[in-house]
Amino acid sequence: MSETRRLPAPVPPGGTIGILGGGQLGRMLALAAARLGLKTHIYSPPNEDAPAFQVSDAQTQAAFDGAAALTSFAEACDAVTFEWENVPVTSVEHIARTRPIFPSARTLGVTQDRLFEKRLVHSLGLKTAPFANVETATDARSAVAETGTPSILKTRRMGYDGKGQAKIRSVDDALQAFERFHAAPCIVEGFVDFAFEASVVAARGLDGSFVAYDPPENIHGDHILRQSIVPSRLTDAQMKEAKAIAKGIADALDYVGVLAVELFVMTDGALLVNEIAPRVHNSGHWTIDACLVSQFENHIRAVAGWPLGTTERHSDAVMENLIGDEAADWAALAAKGGALHLYGKSEIRPGRKMGHVTYLKSKID
Amino acid sequence: MSETRRLPAPVPPGGTIGILGGGQLGRMLALAAARLGLKTHIYSPPNEDAPAFQVSDAQTQAAFDGAAALTSFAEACDAVTFEWENVPVTSVEHIARTRPIFPSARTLGVTQDRLFEKRLVHSLGLKTAPFANVETATDARSAVAETGTPSILKTRRMGYDGKGQAKIRSVDDALQAFERFHAAPCIVEGFVDFAFEASVVAARGLDGSFVAYDPPENIHGDHILRQSIVPSRLTDAQMKEAKAIAKGIADALDYVGVLAVELFVMTDGALLVNEIAPRVHNSGHWTIDACLVSQFENHIRAVAGWPLGTTERHSDAVMENLIGDEAADWAALAAKGGALHLYGKSEIRPGRKMGHVTYLKSKID
Repeated sequence: MSETRRLPAPVPPGGTIGILGGGQLGRMLALAAARLGLKTHIYSPPNEDAPAFQVSDAQTQAAFDGAAALTSFAEACDAVTFEWENVPVTSVEHIARTRPIFPSARTLGVTQDRLFEKRLVHSLGLKTAPFANVETATDARSAVAETGTPSILKTRRMGYDGKGQAKIRSVDDALQAFERFHAAPCIVEGFVDFAFEASVVAARGLDGSFVAYDPPENIHGDHILRQSIVPSRLTDAQMKEAKAIAKGIADALDYVGVLAVELFVMTDGALLVNEIAPRVHNSGHWTIDACLVSQFENHIRAVAGWPLGTTERHSDAVMENLIGDEAADWAALAAKGGALHLYGKSEIRPGRKMGHVTYLKSKID
Repeated sequence: MSETRRLPAPVPPGGTIGILGGGQLGRMLALAAARLGLKTHIYSPPNEDAPAFQVSDAQTQAAFDGAAALTSFAEACDAVTFEWENVPVTSVEHIARTRPIFPSARTLGVTQDRLFEKRLVHSLGLKTAPFANVETATDARSAVAETGTPSILKTRRMGYDGKGQAKIRSVDDALQAFERFHAAPCIVEGFVDFAFEASVVAARGLDGSFVAYDPPENIHGDHILRQSIVPSRLTDAQMKEAKAIAKGIADALDYVGVLAVELFVMTDGALLVNEIAPRVHNSGHWTIDACLVSQFENHIRAVAGWPLGTTERHSDAVMENLIGDEAADWAALAAKGGALHLYGKSEIRPGRKMGHVTYLKSKID
């Protein structure tokens, strides 16, 4: 593993970190890189709103599978990463031929497929909700029998914020949803009666070093994260377990960068792995304002081969997403006393993540 | 004053703030603007290292007195500010014809001249070190007689980080230094036996609202700031007085933006005004990491016509500048546990401000 891998030299200040994807995560990564004296080069598909372009030293507008564009992009960078977990694995492999790119193509191959991801989690002795693979209508019938109802049919690939998901109350529901998803490979996932949701945001360095932020408690609405609260209701033992889960997964993938592991916290105290995000994560945005070194900076540090920074929290925090119209009254939000972050997107659309606000509760309050 | 002035409309998210000057202050202003969803357009003279270019949406490379370039720059911006107090007043007036620009040309006119600045301070009933104006050799003789020796001859204009200053032990010293400064208008300033140095970093909004950070204690070496420490040794009464001094100056100038007032704290407790900086200030860099809203963000808020943000400090802090070679061992600095800021300058030069580190001391420690 890491002891035999030839490590790329760290990218020195003045070097360039390439970022595939130009959304808010790419933007906040670029801002974090700038703090460290690193330049960023953003790669974003045409016709996409790319607010990260506004804060980067260089920009490429080209399709994620454009080989020539990927080649010149890689040449212009010292190390590369991505802000979106559905970047084509072949593009990551293409870049990897000439430049260090983290997380690895292998990691993406696992996390882009819910089935592979859950199998990895199980192989580490960790728990998930009950699930079954669905590649045919016959599979769909037996999957529902296995997991019971209600349950959720999810496409194995390309799902986020509740997209590619259908609630299932019967075998018929499952068959209809499977058809609606064009018989794309799916899983059926059994409902779990969790007490609340949490996540671990952690970073693993090129040298195998590992750090994790205290896990926030996450509140969702319409499948979109609304709030992350730290500290969560997790006990100290659960926090330790949550961080160990993230470390187990990161080590198994020989992961480099920040990853997030979403957890269901069961009423009996058990922690179930819901999803792995091979990137900086919305539930870690509070780290910008409540920690000396944010998740974005730690991701850049890892990708650049720098030592990881502290994950210590100087203040307790609540992060609230601004979805769609909630960002319209920016003047009132600016006057409200929190740390306001707006993402520079060109228009407000319903369900679109436009920004977030972090409210701090100083530890002594 | 402000109640009769027609206020420009606030610059909404997506709007562009123009910044004259592309150094580290412009860079940190651009990063702060980005957090608020504002774009920045950096204007920097040719042949200057302009690290702010790397993090801005648009760039103009032209001389500070280039009328045509200033005109197109202003047209591309919604509001304009500057990171450097020696921008020509005529350029600020030029931009003011078509766009809001803050601080005002009038403010710059005062603060660019040590004599005008000290007269303003005196007119408000505030104290300074003893000083006398020097425009001729005869003035130089009488000035030294007035202030005594040792004292300092300083050019009235264009001085910073100890440049344009000479220590004076005799009338002959004064005459020689005056000649060395090409008989440019100067002042002679008497030595004051201060206990320590402090500064107030404060912001005044378009609507006349005023906020101030707790004044840090500042430690200089070779005329360059080395450390800012907060809290300082100022008593509560002195902190209150320091903030009132800044408010008095800001109100008198109908100031908009962040200003810094450097203070000498005398052994008898008196506060003397040393210098006014009409811009964000090195002694306020700790606010990035120890406050929810930094001096940079508050400056952008003021210039954009937004409500000012909180100046509350969640943690005590020590900010250390990285001068010249001190930034060379960035890997060791990155591992040291503070918040590392590197400015993206293209080369290390002796005496050059390359970055800074902020160490936090959580209030509960």
